[in-house]
Amino acid sequence: MRSTMMKTPLLISRILQHGSTVHGDSEVATWTGEGARHTTYAEVGREAARLAHALRELGVTGDERVGTLMWNNAEHLVAYLAVPSMGAVLHTLNLRLFPEQLIYIANHAEDRVVIVDSTLIPLLAGVLPHLSTVRHIVVCGAGDTSKLQKDGVEVHRWDELLQGRPETYEWPDIDEDDAAALCYTSGTTGNPKGVAYSHRSIYLHSMEVCMAESFGLGPLVRDLCIVPMFHAMAWGLPYAALMSGASLIMPDRFLQAEPLAKMIEVEKPTFAGAVPTIFTDLLAYLDAHPTDTSSLREVVIGGSACPPALMHAYADRYGIQVIHAWGMTEMSPLGSVARAPLGVEGPEAWAYRYTQGRIPASVEGRIVGPMGEVMPNDGKAVGELQVRGPWITAQYIGEDGPDPDKFDNGWLRTGDVGTLTPNGYLTLTDRAKDVIKSGGEWISSVDLENALMAHPAVLEACVVGVPDDKWGERPLATVVLKDGASTDADELREFLAGKVARWQLPERWSFIEAVPKTSVGKFDKKRVRADYAGGTLEVVQING
Amino acid sequence: MRSTMMKTPLLISRILQHGSTVHGDSEVATWTGEGARHTTYAEVGREAARLAHALRELGVTGDERVGTLMWNNAEHLVAYLAVPSMGAVLHTLNLRLFPEQLIYIANHAEDRVVIVDSTLIPLLAGVLPHLSTVRHIVVCGAGDTSKLQKDGVEVHRWDELLQGRPETYEWPDIDEDDAAALCYTSGTTGNPKGVAYSHRSIYLHSMEVCMAESFGLGPLVRDLCIVPMFHAMAWGLPYAALMSGASLIMPDRFLQAEPLAKMIEVEKPTFAGAVPTIFTDLLAYLDAHPTDTSSLREVVIGGSACPPALMHAYADRYGIQVIHAWGMTEMSPLGSVARAPLGVEGPEAWAYRYTQGRIPASVEGRIVGPMGEVMPNDGKAVGELQVRGPWITAQYIGEDGPDPDKFDNGWLRTGDVGTLTPNGYLTLTDRAKDVIKSGGEWISSVDLENALMAHPAVLEACVVGVPDDKWGERPLATVVLKDGASTDADELREFLAGKVARWQLPERWSFIEAVPKTSVGKFDKKRVRADYAGGTLEVVQING
Repeated sequence: MRSTMMKTPLLISRILQHGSTVHGDSEVATWTGEGARHTTYAEVGREAARLAHALRELGVTGDERVGTLMWNNAEHLVAYLAVPSMGAVLHTLNLRLFPEQLIYIANHAEDRVVIVDSTLIPLLAGVLPHLSTVRHIVVCGAGDTSKLQKDGVEVHRWDELLQGRPETYEWPDIDEDDAAALCYTSGTTGNPKGVAYSHRSIYLHSMEVCMAESFGLGPLVRDLCIVPMFHAMAWGLPYAALMSGASLIMPDRFLQAEPLAKMIEVEKPTFAGAVPTIFTDLLAYLDAHPTDTSSLREVVIGGSACPPALMHAYADRYGIQVIHAWGMTEMSPLGSVARAPLGVEGPEAWAYRYTQGRIPASVEGRIVGPMGEVMPNDGKAVGELQVRGPWITAQYIGEDGPDPDKFDNGWLRTGDVGTLTPNGYLTLTDRAKDVIKSGGEWISSVDLENALMAHPAVLEACVVGVPDDKWGERPLATVVLKDGASTDADELREFLAGKVARWQLPERWSFIEAVPKTSVGKFDKKRVRADYAGGTLEVVQING
Repeated sequence: MRSTMMKTPLLISRILQHGSTVHGDSEVATWTGEGARHTTYAEVGREAARLAHALRELGVTGDERVGTLMWNNAEHLVAYLAVPSMGAVLHTLNLRLFPEQLIYIANHAEDRVVIVDSTLIPLLAGVLPHLSTVRHIVVCGAGDTSKLQKDGVEVHRWDELLQGRPETYEWPDIDEDDAAALCYTSGTTGNPKGVAYSHRSIYLHSMEVCMAESFGLGPLVRDLCIVPMFHAMAWGLPYAALMSGASLIMPDRFLQAEPLAKMIEVEKPTFAGAVPTIFTDLLAYLDAHPTDTSSLREVVIGGSACPPALMHAYADRYGIQVIHAWGMTEMSPLGSVARAPLGVEGPEAWAYRYTQGRIPASVEGRIVGPMGEVMPNDGKAVGELQVRGPWITAQYIGEDGPDPDKFDNGWLRTGDVGTLTPNGYLTLTDRAKDVIKSGGEWISSVDLENALMAHPAVLEACVVGVPDDKWGERPLATVVLKDGASTDADELREFLAGKVARWQLPERWSFIEAVPKTSVGKFDKKRVRADYAGGTLEVVQING
């Protein structure tokens, strides 16, 4: 039996039309260094219409791609709304990529137009000679454009290009499953891989961001949107803001603690979203420079795990609740939000808040063990997390089908290893590539590291899997002792014995001067494994 | 360009699976008269599986209809979830309909099974001889079933039927556009008309109910669900509760003020949804019987306009915020929610809260004037409200296509007349059939009535449109004076002149003993028009 319901498609143009009329008074504040320039969603709607007319005149038709190389600002928001609404496809270029990656993704996506902040002209100028499909560049803001010279490429000024154009646009009917926006992940190996969000996936994801259990965006929220619009669609916050009437405070390129503190004091956000490092820096600044942060009640932190100490510091000193969240570019990106359940308080509530969070109805999760078996969601069984749902990608752009290394029969393999409790809380412990596969069981390298680092003599401990004839892999513990401290492998092994299962205890131990680190300060486990394989580590062998 | 996103359908089985696992500890409390019986969503999930197995055994296949003649209770919730999840279609039978209407809708929907609360056996027994498609009756609760006798109809007990059946069910893949549930409107004329909600429409509507701007359901909410599950799907609250983990407090048949007060005191809801009359009765009870209502913070009132005095009384005396909302069975039903915008306080905020509310992104609204012209959303232009969106019906069940009296080129004609402000607030003044069409302009009968009733001598005023040779229609004012008061048509016309536009002033006046009323106490305007046409009213004619 067919339903009698309207077949109204879920489109970004609906978000734009709603936001720019019903919430026409809500505002976007873009930081300028000194203060903020303000505009309303009504004006954003008019500007989106002007941009769409301008892009049509530049020849953008069908589903051609329009790239943005921009910070978080009002013009980027206009592009977010106008480009998909006109049927074209937005491609947010991640300005933190290496130049060769930037070139790769712009060519792979076949970007025809690039909109660029004038402060990012040097970056664009450096890669422009290698961009094979770009025909137009639109520059936002004042600044010398003379470096943007290439045969067959026209350079325009945003203000001049949009001036005098109509303030309304007949947004076309679009299939909700058509691509609306592209985002490429910055994989550490190989070329970046892209996903194409649909109008439907963005619309549904925006509703989720407005749900009370998730971020609760609504007309009473002022969102300091620190998480960059060039990365994972700024967690969907810009679209959710237009959908719900939440105002946006955009930091532009001013992402240091001092200007962020000023933005909080002046623009009075109630809510913010950011990665942990920015909020670590901000905490130090606030502690040293008294700032009125009273408007700010909730900060969602994601991107990487948030140190519990940071969460407590904000709660205790500033009355700001840090909410932990987890997601992936492949997931639009919202995967889980860590709020404690009803009736749980004190340390138990904090234990829930330290997790990666609870999955919503539209994100189905399962834990898959080393042999590909689906394991129970009992909070104990450790395996790779797999997810599926209407805003999760089924494959990467341009690939013939789902890559079995990344997808498993309709599920996305997240590449993260952890547990899922019966009540839907996710704890991720390892990247799948770092977990130790020993005799058909998995050993968490991170669990062993944390247990070791609790020993008073240990400064740092890095555990990696190394080949073992009998078990496939076994853990190798590399340990850095504190200055003047002394212990040995036997003692540390005994210390661990009370904390992890006996079969997980490492047989191989190495005492080193320092753990090699990556450029972003994480343990470089690839290097440790290579050192072991190359025989440059001095290893003590203990058999249990 | 096609997106790479998963084609995961939006299904009620996903809501069921999520609610019964991730929110397995959330609970349903069903009032028994003495106290509540409690069960968890985990158990609701198991019971839903048992019911699905049982219905399959009774021969329910494909999209066959399963009717429910039930109050709000845990078993009704189980049916809400199990029936659509198994691919069958839930038909909530409105127990307040006249028997002939009940017979009509059960036969029209071709209900094969009816699940009935034992307290409603007398009602079902009365209509059973005329139900032509029903083959099975499932009785919930103890009680004599001997009256449910009909050839070809088997009677089962819920508990016995479900006992020992598997606690899981392989919920089938379903097209999200397939029908999930049917609801018939109880029109005052002609047969009831049905709409068929889809899995998609119910899923999207559930997300909306969880959005902060709407009802904000989430795991911290305990929802006293007074609005009946047999009417407009209880505003989508049951599905939204499972989706978000909000607990449900179900009054069963105990809808009087005293048991409701007890439920509030004992079960500690944070939120409730109901029609105004119930909350009017409850207020009187609370004023006379001190009750601990401290848990209850927000009550959504819809179904008919909520008197401002009631909203203020709850806010002032009990700290309970009454939130006005508006919708229709044809709209799943959520159409608008009246929360004041950011930064607005005091009387201005209350003015927003008195309106029918603000439309969300998924409900597009427009005002259409007497000549079919689309009018501006300026808060002034008065016309019929038309709406469209993904949870609004495009036609009625069994009709060849959209009836032009009810639909206008893809828009639902709500039959309500009013205004829409630029920021999306809706004020409804009249039913379209009661508005007075005078010379291509519309006159609100309700505005004239309210203005007249502000005169100290006037007890009641009922204004209807009557035929006029020159203008098509003109207003007739019928007035009931207060005991001992005296005035005349000239004075009342002058009194009105300062309050409404001159051309709206009635020429025809009639002083009557009492305004005829319908069975539910509303002005019977049909009867007043008939009295005028029949010449039984004494009319004074004044020409302006």
